[in-house]
Formats: sequence, C-alpha cells, structure tokens
Amino acid sequence: MDNRQIVLNERPEGKVTSSTTRLVSEPAPEVGDGEALIRVAMLSIDPTIRTWMDDAPGYLPPIQLGEVIRGGGAGVVVESKSSRYREGDIVFGMTGWQEFALATNDNRFAVLPKGLGLDLGTVMNVLGVTGVTAYFGLLDVGAMTPGDVVVVSGAAGATGSVAGQIAKARGASKVVGIAGGPEKCADVVERYGFDECLDYREAHLRRRLRAACPSGVDLYFDNVGGEILDDVLTTLAMRARVVLCGAISQYNAVGSRHGLENTSTLITRRARMEGFIILDYSSRFDEARAELAAMVLSGALRHQEHIVKGLERAPEALNHLFSGENRGKTLVEVDESVLLG
Amino acid sequence: MDNRQIVLNERPEGKVTSSTTRLVSEPAPEVGDGEALIRVAMLSIDPTIRTWMDDAPGYLPPIQLGEVIRGGGAGVVVESKSSRYREGDIVFGMTGWQEFALATNDNRFAVLPKGLGLDLGTVMNVLGVTGVTAYFGLLDVGAMTPGDVVVVSGAAGATGSVAGQIAKARGASKVVGIAGGPEKCADVVERYGFDECLDYREAHLRRRLRAACPSGVDLYFDNVGGEILDDVLTTLAMRARVVLCGAISQYNAVGSRHGLENTSTLITRRARMEGFIILDYSSRFDEARAELAAMVLSGALRHQEHIVKGLERAPEALNHLFSGENRGKTLVEVDESVLLG
Repeated sequence: MDNRQIVLNERPEGKVTSSTTRLVSEPAPEVGDGEALIRVAMLSIDPTIRTWMDDAPGYLPPIQLGEVIRGGGAGVVVESKSSRYREGDIVFGMTGWQEFALATNDNRFAVLPKGLGLDLGTVMNVLGVTGVTAYFGLLDVGAMTPGDVVVVSGAAGATGSVAGQIAKARGASKVVGIAGGPEKCADVVERYGFDECLDYREAHLRRRLRAACPSGVDLYFDNVGGEILDDVLTTLAMRARVVLCGAISQYNAVGSRHGLENTSTLITRRARMEGFIILDYSSRFDEARAELAAMVLSGALRHQEHIVKGLERAPEALNHLFSGENRGKTLVEVDESVLLG
Repeated sequence: MDNRQIVLNERPEGKVTSSTTRLVSEPAPEVGDGEALIRVAMLSIDPTIRTWMDDAPGYLPPIQLGEVIRGGGAGVVVESKSSRYREGDIVFGMTGWQEFALATNDNRFAVLPKGLGLDLGTVMNVLGVTGVTAYFGLLDVGAMTPGDVVVVSGAAGATGSVAGQIAKARGASKVVGIAGGPEKCADVVERYGFDECLDYREAHLRRRLRAACPSGVDLYFDNVGGEILDDVLTTLAMRARVVLCGAISQYNAVGSRHGLENTSTLITRRARMEGFIILDYSSRFDEARAELAAMVLSGALRHQEHIVKGLERAPEALNHLFSGENRGKTLVEVDESVLLG
C-alpha cells in the first residue's frame, strides 16, 4: 500500500511556494504492537504550521528538511494492534500531511464518540483545535466576564468566528470583529452575529475602534498581531486583557517585523497581555467540546468550512490562510471515500 | 508667608530644560475648615512626573501650563483645622513642587507613626512610593514564587534595587540586575546583593542574559521599556511574568519610540506581560510598609538616597533620573530646617 506524503523540501522565505514542499511516496507503515494504522480523511490547515517550517525556536521543534509536514487531521482506523483503537473508529490527532498515519504511544489520537450527529468537517472545525482554542483563549486566558466589551481580530476566520460567538453567548455587552474586506465583514455580522465588524483595510482603524468601543476594550482576542494589535492597544479599558492567540500577519514576514509601539498603555490601563498554546489545555478539551457541540446542535454556533480537495493542494490551502482567500475553517480532503466505507 | 512654587512653563520636547518650568511665588494658602497647612521638607523625584508634563493621555491628567508640578513629598503640619492632622505631624502625600501644601479632603496625606527610628530620607525611599512599587510589582503583579529566576532592570535605581532585594529575601533562585555602567553594576552586586549585574551599555545583552539565566527568566521586573525589554523577551522561561513598572527609556523620546519586536515569545512561552499603577494599591500600603520597615531595621534591605538641595533644583534632579547621574532614590530637600524645629 502506497502512502503519499508531503515533505519539507526547502525552508520558505515568506509565502510557501511550489519548491517549499514536494510530494513523495513510500510504503504505508507496518503496524507494531500497541499501534494502529489510520487512513487519513481530512487535514486541518492552521496558521501555526507555517511557523514550524522556519528554522526558528518555537513551542515545537522546526520541521526538518525531508520530514512530513506536521499538522492535525482526522481519519479512520484501518488496522489496529492496540486496545485503544478499533477498526472503523474515527480518530483525530497529528496525522501529518500524508495518506496513512501511525498511532503510537507517542502520537495518541482521540476517538470520536459515536452518534454525535455532526459531519466530520464540523467536528474538525468546531470541536477541533480551532474551537477549543477559541474557548480557552476567551474564557481561561482572557477571563471573559459578562458585560465585557470584546474585540476579535481574524473575525471571519475559524478561531475568531467561534470566539466571538462564545463571547455573545456568555453575555459580552458588545462583540466587535476586525476582518479584511466588506464581504468578510458582512459575514461576521450577518452569519456569526457580531454586533459590528471593522474592515482593517480601510483607513483610521484606531479611530473606528474608539467609536465602536467608547468605553474601551475589555478583552481583545488577537489572531493577527502586528499593526492591528498595536492599534487595539491604544483603545484598552482599565484592567483589559489581551489574549495573544496567534500573529498571522507576522508569520510570512521576511526581515523586520512590526514593532509594537503602544505597550505603554498596558501600564496606564493596568492591562495584561498573555499568550497561550492550546496543547497545554489538552486534558480539558472535553469540557470545551461538550459546550461547543451543544451550541452547534442548538444552532447557537454558526460555522463554515472551506474544503480544498486533494492532499497535493495542502500547501496551497495553507497560503489561503494568509492571502485571505479562505472563509471559515480551511480543511483539505485527502480521501473522500474513507468515510463512506 | 510666601510660598515658592515651580510651575509648568511650557511642555518639554525630550528632556526638561530651563524654560520647561519657572519659579513663582505667591502667598501661602489660607487654611479652611477640615484642612491643614504643610511645610514641605522633601520632594520625591520620580520618573512618572516627566510623563505628566506631556499633553498625552495617561493614568492621571497632564499637568496644565501654569500649574504647580505634581509630585510626592513629605513635610510637617504647621497649622491644622482638621481632626486628622496635628501640628508637628510628619506627613506624606502629593505636595507638589512648592514650599507649602494644603491637605484637603481631596488631597489626603499619610501621617508618619512616631518612634519608627528611621530618618526621613529612608522613609521616603523605602516606605514611600518607590518601596511599595517594588513590593507589589514583584509579589502581586509578578506573583513571584520561591525558586524564580528574577531579572530587574534599573537595578541601581530606587525601585529596582528594592525589588531585587525583596526577591532575594523571598527565595528567588537567582536575581540578575541590569544597569548602566560598571560603577552601578558593582553597586548592584556589592551593595544590594544581587547575584549578578549586566551592563546594558556593553554589547550583546541578549547573549549575556542567556548566559546568566540558562533556564530562562521566570519574572522580569521592567523599569525601562524599549530595547532592554525587547531583549529580555527573547529569554523568557515558560509561564514567565513580565511586570511593566515603567518605561524610563521612552519618557524623553521625541518622535518614534522603540517598537517591541519580540512579543511573539509571549505566545510560545505562554507568558504574560502586565502593567500596574501603584496608586491602585494604596489601601494595602501598610502591609508592604510593615515588611519593608522590618527589613530595613534588620539590615536585610540596603538603600541609598541621592539628595539634591533646593526647591529650584527639582527640574535638574528630574533630569538626573534619565541621564543616569543619580544613585538610589532621588530626593529634593526643600527646607532642612523644617524637621529640626
């Protein structure tokens, strides 16, 4: 059985190009004792994957040249020598960009409960890394309380759209999105129910933020970093919390990055800026998933998947996250037949 | 009775100059019911005073042109129509840069307990704003715990030197100072007992920080902002806390300020950067003062005062904070006879 894989060919400078990765093929792995073979159905395309391609210190080691691109995914167990997995189980975890992944003791997968009544795309979006990131970022790191004025950047994106909807559901007094372009902004308000959405491509973002949040921003959920973060820093309310979830504007930056000039407001407003990595919350994922699944089933949580077909298009799908071409959660369908069997 | 005052003459660009302030004289204020007149003995010269001279939003309104320069000080009650103060009491509060200040309901002063056995300079330094800032910044905002690797900038300064000594006393595994020049660095180690002090004027601060803190910095007490803060951000340990106490490097900056480029480590290290304003802790000052006074009396807390004589030299004393000419706490002696009478 062949296992097609996408491996790192050379380190990108800026955007991923056709020479950043290459497609290789090798035999599917042998299943050892305690292991299981997973046929990959879908890949979760997340901005953080781009950071792992750089030879720079991060929260995980860089992907090595020649190594399969690291990333989350879902699939079906096709062979198991582990008591943890049964043939036919739908599982989630770090599949990497390939057709077959091996579940080992070092690389454990979560098994999807039966009868959830949600399709795989929804599950990978809302119950996947994206949804739980929004949940813990907002509620735990950001310590959101009812009445907060909440601003979310990347508001049309997978994490941002969920974060804003949780904020609404939890009693935020106002939820303001920031997104790029009028179509995304319309989506943020009409589809996801934010109170307002500011287009960062238009001029005077700072002034529009102040107009939208005259009493200041209590909680800013930042998915983008850079200039937008710097602008929001000028509009913080007293004791504001800035949750650093990601800095997508900086991941493709070549040379100098945007330097934050307005952090002195953290002093004058007694505010806090804090980063987090969702892996630290893995023992609490079920708590988030229970609430998120209930919200989806009740219709309180709207979501959208942008599905790109074909393993070989995963690098292109990753670029979509940065060019703004995507809507909602970007997924790559590796093999549609997997889930029909 | 004349009351000599220093008022804001024009807003400074960069450093305070001879035309920034002017000396005026007016009759000492009449004492109304519930008020008391204070003869000012000493002024506390703090970097934050420089920020109040700018016409920019801050945690307090800017000083207006023609208004007495705002600032803390101590003096003796010479007339009282208030049950709160008795003639002869030594009191602390916002005296402003003048010879006589009025204690009113809006401008309350703390009365120094009798028989403390500490001279006024020591009290204004260690038990004044400086000492309590170090205390709450380190222990409350920074949530210092025994075993932390603590780095303090402005380590030869009034707040920094106290912060480092509290950290040692509370069981930090290592306390590293950052200061400007070999003499200050020697002071930080020999006088204040830090484990090490790095001279930021020498090259490769980042590399020297990594060498001094190979397991990373758990708590950074930042008094300076700017490039030094940016360098320390690259060396944070997991779950590090960065306490923003002040940004003295930026207060005189004309035009563009240093933009922080390394805040992405807040994400990868799950770290937190938080600002505070000491006024918020005023209801808890006694708690800090009790511990600080005990440390001074037992010899566990070393301190130093840099006393400049003459009200008219207060602007010059303020500049000392930024040029690095001062050592320890900068105080202006307005009238030495006050405390002898």
